[in-house]
Amino acid sequence: MPKKITTTISPEGSLEVLSQHEVSRLRDTSANGLHGLLRRCALAVLNYGNTSDDARAIMETYHDFDIQVLQQDRGIRLKLTNAPVDAFVDGEMIRGTRQLLSSVLRDIVYVYNEIQNQSRFDLSTGEGTTNAIFHILRKAGVLKPSADPSLVVCWGGHSISREEYDYSKSVGYHLGLRNLDICTGCGPGAMKGPMKGANVAHAKQRRTESRYLGISEPGIIAAEAPNPIVNELVIMPDIEKRLEAFLRVGHGIIVFPGGVGTAEEILYLLGILLNPDNRNTPLPVIFTGPADAADYFKRIDEFLVYTLGEEARQCYQIIIDDPVQVARTMRDGIDAVTEFRRAKHDAFYYNWHLNIARGFQEPFEATHEAMASLALHRQQPVHELAATLRRAFSGIVAGNVKEDGIQAIETHGPFQLHAETELMTRLDELLDSFVVQGRMKLPGSDYVPCYTLT
Amino acid sequence: MPKKITTTISPEGSLEVLSQHEVSRLRDTSANGLHGLLRRCALAVLNYGNTSDDARAIMETYHDFDIQVLQQDRGIRLKLTNAPVDAFVDGEMIRGTRQLLSSVLRDIVYVYNEIQNQSRFDLSTGEGTTNAIFHILRKAGVLKPSADPSLVVCWGGHSISREEYDYSKSVGYHLGLRNLDICTGCGPGAMKGPMKGANVAHAKQRRTESRYLGISEPGIIAAEAPNPIVNELVIMPDIEKRLEAFLRVGHGIIVFPGGVGTAEEILYLLGILLNPDNRNTPLPVIFTGPADAADYFKRIDEFLVYTLGEEARQCYQIIIDDPVQVARTMRDGIDAVTEFRRAKHDAFYYNWHLNIARGFQEPFEATHEAMASLALHRQQPVHELAATLRRAFSGIVAGNVKEDGIQAIETHGPFQLHAETELMTRLDELLDSFVVQGRMKLPGSDYVPCYTLT
Amino acid sequence: MPKKITTTISPEGSLEVLSQHEVSRLRDTSANGLHGLLRRCALAVLNYGNTSDDARAIMETYHDFDIQVLQQDRGIRLKLTNAPVDAFVDGEMIRGTRQLLSSVLRDIVYVYNEIQNQSRFDLSTGEGTTNAIFHILRKAGVLKPSADPSLVVCWGGHSISREEYDYSKSVGYHLGLRNLDICTGCGPGAMKGPMKGANVAHAKQRRTESRYLGISEPGIIAAEAPNPIVNELVIMPDIEKRLEAFLRVGHGIIVFPGGVGTAEEILYLLGILLNPDNRNTPLPVIFTGPADAADYFKRIDEFLVYTLGEEARQCYQIIIDDPVQVARTMRDGIDAVTEFRRAKHDAFYYNWHLNIARGFQEPFEATHEAMASLALHRQQPVHELAATLRRAFSGIVAGNVKEDGIQAIETHGPFQLHAETELMTRLDELLDSFVVQGRMKLPGSDYVPCYTLT
Amino acid sequence: MPKKITTTISPEGSLEVLSQHEVSRLRDTSANGLHGLLRRCALAVLNYGNTSDDARAIMETYHDFDIQVLQQDRGIRLKLTNAPVDAFVDGEMIRGTRQLLSSVLRDIVYVYNEIQNQSRFDLSTGEGTTNAIFHILRKAGVLKPSADPSLVVCWGGHSISREEYDYSKSVGYHLGLRNLDICTGCGPGAMKGPMKGANVAHAKQRRTESRYLGISEPGIIAAEAPNPIVNELVIMPDIEKRLEAFLRVGHGIIVFPGGVGTAEEILYLLGILLNPDNRNTPLPVIFTGPADAADYFKRIDEFLVYTLGEEARQCYQIIIDDPVQVARTMRDGIDAVTEFRRAKHDAFYYNWHLNIARGFQEPFEATHEAMASLALHRQQPVHELAATLRRAFSGIVAGNVKEDGIQAIETHGPFQLHAETELMTRLDELLDSFVVQGRMKLPGSDYVPCYTLT
Repeated sequence: MPKKITTTISPEGSLEVLSQHEVSRLRDTSANGLHGLLRRCALAVLNYGNTSDDARAIMETYHDFDIQVLQQDRGIRLKLTNAPVDAFVDGEMIRGTRQLLSSVLRDIVYVYNEIQNQSRFDLSTGEGTTNAIFHILRKAGVLKPSADPSLVVCWGGHSISREEYDYSKSVGYHLGLRNLDICTGCGPGAMKGPMKGANVAHAKQRRTESRYLGISEPGIIAAEAPNPIVNELVIMPDIEKRLEAFLRVGHGIIVFPGGVGTAEEILYLLGILLNPDNRNTPLPVIFTGPADAADYFKRIDEFLVYTLGEEARQCYQIIIDDPVQVARTMRDGIDAVTEFRRAKHDAFYYNWHLNIARGFQEPFEATHEAMASLALHRQQPVHELAATLRRAFSGIVAGNVKEDGIQAIETHGPFQLHAETELMTRLDELLDSFVVQGRMKLPGSDYVPCYTLT
Repeated sequence: MPKKITTTISPEGSLEVLSQHEVSRLRDTSANGLHGLLRRCALAVLNYGNTSDDARAIMETYHDFDIQVLQQDRGIRLKLTNAPVDAFVDGEMIRGTRQLLSSVLRDIVYVYNEIQNQSRFDLSTGEGTTNAIFHILRKAGVLKPSADPSLVVCWGGHSISREEYDYSKSVGYHLGLRNLDICTGCGPGAMKGPMKGANVAHAKQRRTESRYLGISEPGIIAAEAPNPIVNELVIMPDIEKRLEAFLRVGHGIIVFPGGVGTAEEILYLLGILLNPDNRNTPLPVIFTGPADAADYFKRIDEFLVYTLGEEARQCYQIIIDDPVQVARTMRDGIDAVTEFRRAKHDAFYYNWHLNIARGFQEPFEATHEAMASLALHRQQPVHELAATLRRAFSGIVAGNVKEDGIQAIETHGPFQLHAETELMTRLDELLDSFVVQGRMKLPGSDYVPCYTLT
Repeated sequence: MPKKITTTISPEGSLEVLSQHEVSRLRDTSANGLHGLLRRCALAVLNYGNTSDDARAIMETYHDFDIQVLQQDRGIRLKLTNAPVDAFVDGEMIRGTRQLLSSVLRDIVYVYNEIQNQSRFDLSTGEGTTNAIFHILRKAGVLKPSADPSLVVCWGGHSISREEYDYSKSVGYHLGLRNLDICTGCGPGAMKGPMKGANVAHAKQRRTESRYLGISEPGIIAAEAPNPIVNELVIMPDIEKRLEAFLRVGHGIIVFPGGVGTAEEILYLLGILLNPDNRNTPLPVIFTGPADAADYFKRIDEFLVYTLGEEARQCYQIIIDDPVQVARTMRDGIDAVTEFRRAKHDAFYYNWHLNIARGFQEPFEATHEAMASLALHRQQPVHELAATLRRAFSGIVAGNVKEDGIQAIETHGPFQLHAETELMTRLDELLDSFVVQGRMKLPGSDYVPCYTLT
Repeated sequence: MPKKITTTISPEGSLEVLSQHEVSRLRDTSANGLHGLLRRCALAVLNYGNTSDDARAIMETYHDFDIQVLQQDRGIRLKLTNAPVDAFVDGEMIRGTRQLLSSVLRDIVYVYNEIQNQSRFDLSTGEGTTNAIFHILRKAGVLKPSADPSLVVCWGGHSISREEYDYSKSVGYHLGLRNLDICTGCGPGAMKGPMKGANVAHAKQRRTESRYLGISEPGIIAAEAPNPIVNELVIMPDIEKRLEAFLRVGHGIIVFPGGVGTAEEILYLLGILLNPDNRNTPLPVIFTGPADAADYFKRIDEFLVYTLGEEARQCYQIIIDDPVQVARTMRDGIDAVTEFRRAKHDAFYYNWHLNIARGFQEPFEATHEAMASLALHRQQPVHELAATLRRAFSGIVAGNVKEDGIQAIETHGPFQLHAETELMTRLDELLDSFVVQGRMKLPGSDYVPCYTLT
């Protein structure tokens, strides 16, 4: 049995004072209340040291964990019962963890009181969705008007080799030396390495306002819990808004080797960049890894060209085993983004310009039915195929690590995906390679595919 | 003709980045848009040096003034056309004024997008209203959880003698030496003196986080424009929410000599403090002025006892001509408030505890009809009479200085107020004394009463 | 009997930790020790509210005052016995006063341990003296390399009329609006007004790093004690180093009406500016006062032309009754200084360039003999006459307000000054006008001249 | 040939403005001037990436390196000619390196102008020496009166295994989680690991005022150049003052495995702690390393008991392979130090209490003659033997890595050390074990002993 701690802590960071109404909603354990959501996300944050792909196992181990919000003279305090001991040092919670916990609280309060079910935000439209994302990020303090563009979004696997991890650290280090900041989806592996590397570089550069921005969502946070180096955390309501948030706030994107989640992100990204409206909007994209990841990116590159056409290649550069070159290229690319935004009087902090088609915004719920009906063939416009492939990968991620997804697979067996022959072959090979390379699961567990391809 | 300046400035202070939707609403000059409101409030802030009771005269002088919101790389900028020259020094806007302007923008954007007409806030209920006020103040950054109670609300006339003004400065100085902060309704006279005095004391105490909080509303801001010493400004939607805001954030209240607006505030305050629910909630209240204001407070005191009964006297202390004593008493009173809140686990920054009856919350529109139908007699519960008297005084303030009110008086003649005989006599004497003492208007203009008592 | 307070306080501000040796020197009450000096200067700072020209009276009233330095875990603390009550608010010392006290301590420790009697600084040479002044100012934290030139030295009487005082406040206000800082010799009157005015303007400009620099010396500090608005205080070892410090750190100079001390400063200034080496070094100098000070400056102007020649007029501008014009002219002048320093790669924070002849650096001790032997005639180079006149005025200041000087006059009668006929007449008229205008003493006392002219 | 960069940079950090005299001394290339010293130390700082034990090789590679101090409007700037490229990122110097360079300049200016050859500091006495060290540290801003005791001095080898390095990082991490700061002698290995570990922990704890203090001296800085994570650097004049500085500012000491330099530090430490005057002064001392360092510490322990007696063991704890336990023990030990200092009214920031015998203060110059005459036998008081052994180890360090020492060995052959038989045997074994374990030299070079034992 893991050791557990019961204590009361003060929030830390960007959480404001709460109204009586907000506090009572957080306490509400009914279906309409927010207490269950708060409890789940809080546990994920507190448990970050013991990352597991199985959110349900965590919930079971800490079935007696609870969090309550108390009103005090200086604002609220949080009462924790049976919390994971690893979030504490000699009985005191790590301050960064306390800050992350406060961010979770802030976003739950905001999103579920002021965004969801509010007439102000019509989430069935593109404009309404983009506006809601803007408001969530603004509330989180992520939109900083006085900062120069500096935010590099790093994507890649949560389950990578030591060598790949060290490589991602090195890239982060060289980005940090060039005064760039890191944004990732939180979690271990390629989401943590660049932050750690950048942290050392920022210390050497005496950069006191450094940003380690994590963007998560309730379904993924248990599997990819934020490391306390993350000093800005936003919980978006769902995976699609999370992906859009990356593109709206990031000034450049680096993709490290990864698994199906990374493939989802790449398809999402290219589907949008190939949209003719976005042709002239600069966004540096680099795929990179150590020497023995060269083959990995070759396969990705081929799959992209096969599915999205030759012009997809214009959207990214592949740089192998050269962290300094990656960092210089990114620095130059972001300088170009800065010039572009300045010339267009565009905001530095939110990329309003980018046109994101509805197909990429609509939440996709990975039911067996939905997965089975995905139209995986090339007789459709490139960006529609990209959107469909993105959904397929998203569903597999859900089946791998999300609570609901795992449950559905256990009940109904693997998802059935139908694709035209060659696409199926290539997709199969790609997914198989992820399995073989151990990119589907955290180390220490065997992977049983949650899908079949027919 | 006054000199005017056309320029573009950057916001300053607590205004965040705005969404495209928010910017477009600020640009919208239709009836539903916010441009007119923004223009009026902005002009009031910029014109503070030339305070006048006649908002319409200001609007005429600056009929060609305009303000536009521009989107830029680092957020928005404000384009001003034909702005009053006094807000500038050698062509550059005073930074404090720029900050106030940004606060105006912030509150207009927030209140009219997120409070008014939103299902979340049911303004027809007490709870909904109090919650909305909380949200507006929180958005303005006024609710500071880490600060100890220190906020002294200072009420009193905008048109007072040099001696009374110097006295209010001296009180402010001695409050400031005791590390207390000042909150007023903005404007000249007793709203400015305490801030100036406290500012000197805070400099001597090297108090860098000093607060000079002004709470205004669109109807009054032109007549009582914030001095740039005000470093936190909130624009509440109407006079009733402004009054409630004073009581929710203030930790003690000082009343200097004033006119009918001050009387309105006193009636409001006592009507609430006499509510049995509030008996045990400590709130230090001091009426004070220089030696020759002794008679003034004697009259107020008598009127209060006559209308609200002997127990009203338990709610306040009168201290004449002794700023040090005022400051010490207030410091002790606020220490008691601190103890009380701590013991009750109450927030320091928002007095949730205070029960404010609906009669004090409902906006009162001072039409001739509404004024004529006020039930001014003593055959009703004390707190209802207090609420009714408050409305009567509020109407007279409107007739004196608010754009709509002055217009109504010009069109329909003075308001008709009906009161029972003795109450009428006493009310008449009180109001007459305000006229005689020149407390109804700023110096330099004769006062023509906007009411008749029958 | 004034009330007195015994307490222990912590230092505040730029005082560092002290070594055991430094602490023991501060405790040493022998003739070689620093305790007596510390006690006298500390008392002056604590007694600022009761300014008196008679330092001895203060020492008598507080004969039982004492200050001791204690070693504590977080550095030193100061034990005060029978300290003047005015430095405290409800038993707690005003923080600004605590800071000034720490500055006194810092400078005494530094000057008497590291400057006086150290082989490193040869105070008998110009270079050594200028270097010592640099080190004292650097230790005090006054030399700020990152700040743009902004320091306006304000000279003028400590005993001036209400109207002149308000005028000096207004000038300070308009300087402050233009982001200029104030440096004076501390004390009341024209040394306090500009700081108070600037303080209000700086609050409006949200200028958080504002400087109110006071430069004093042990002989004058009792008569001209620093107001707690002073947020940087330096105690120079003697009057000559104090005057040099003004010229080395100031970027412009404003002279308000004053008495013989002001005349001393003007002679010092012009004697240096007329030095051919300094012709091309820009330094804006403005003489200014309200309308009825016009005659005062006319007399000064005539005396300067008579004694120093027509070209003296090139060194200053006289602006009467126009604070805005004074502020604009000073702003422009300081901008020119900035350009000059930048072009010459000169330091912004210390005017190394200025050549100050030894005659202006050598300490002048105002004995009867020294005063009697001053060569007051025009048969000498202009800058030598200026230096001699400066000494004469300096001696009269000493006879008026310094402890030693007053003692000497009581023992030996007035100083005898010998001058050639016309110079004597003009000097006599000038000094008489100071007496008549009440500029020789603080109000409330009759002035008995401490000199005779023959 | 390494790439070199010529550029001009601004200082950064605690360096103040310099006087004309100070600048001219830095430019003085004569024997009395400071230019040579500045050049050597600056080069060491800039070259940190290419650590080598051979200072002379570095000087040769960069024979054309130069540094000049320029006077500018905002203070000085530094002109660098042919500087090592590794201190730069894309042509701009790393800000931390700029800060270290400024610290070097600051200490050279201060020590050689104000400490050396000044009558104020009698360096031939214990008191004078300790006072001089206080002044150097104070000038460097290292003595922070408001900080709680938190400074853990970490000693250990610059040439250690990857495993030992990772272990030192882990210890640093757990110290950092407990809000402790790190002080080392700069350089690679055990001097860098704890800082890197603490840096990650401090980021997680959001500790913004973290201290990574390096204390060096001109003879050692080339071989142990400060990593830019070091954010406070002090250059003491010689090795003995450097060792004393460690003990005066540190609140606890951790010794990792190391070589002869580490042995020197241990002997120095125990010689002082065994002084009866210091018996009651608490100072936590922990020897620690990973599992396979257990034997190493066993040998050290035996050698200490043999030479200094059984009671030496009371002065330290040995904890093997348990970073959390090390950190907890140190935290507790420092809490006890805090209590002790508070109870005794001792300064937190400087351990005045510790009695350091003259034998540990006097600079030891490692000539062949001096080394040969060291009395290495047990017929002397324990603390004298400790002092003599310390000198022997110090001489070997000099012969290994200091410019002068290497030169002397090349000219005259190895040092001859004479010891009584058993002591010789044990000493020989200890030194041999350092050679065998590769602790005498950085990897990549064979070690030829610079001593013979007879």
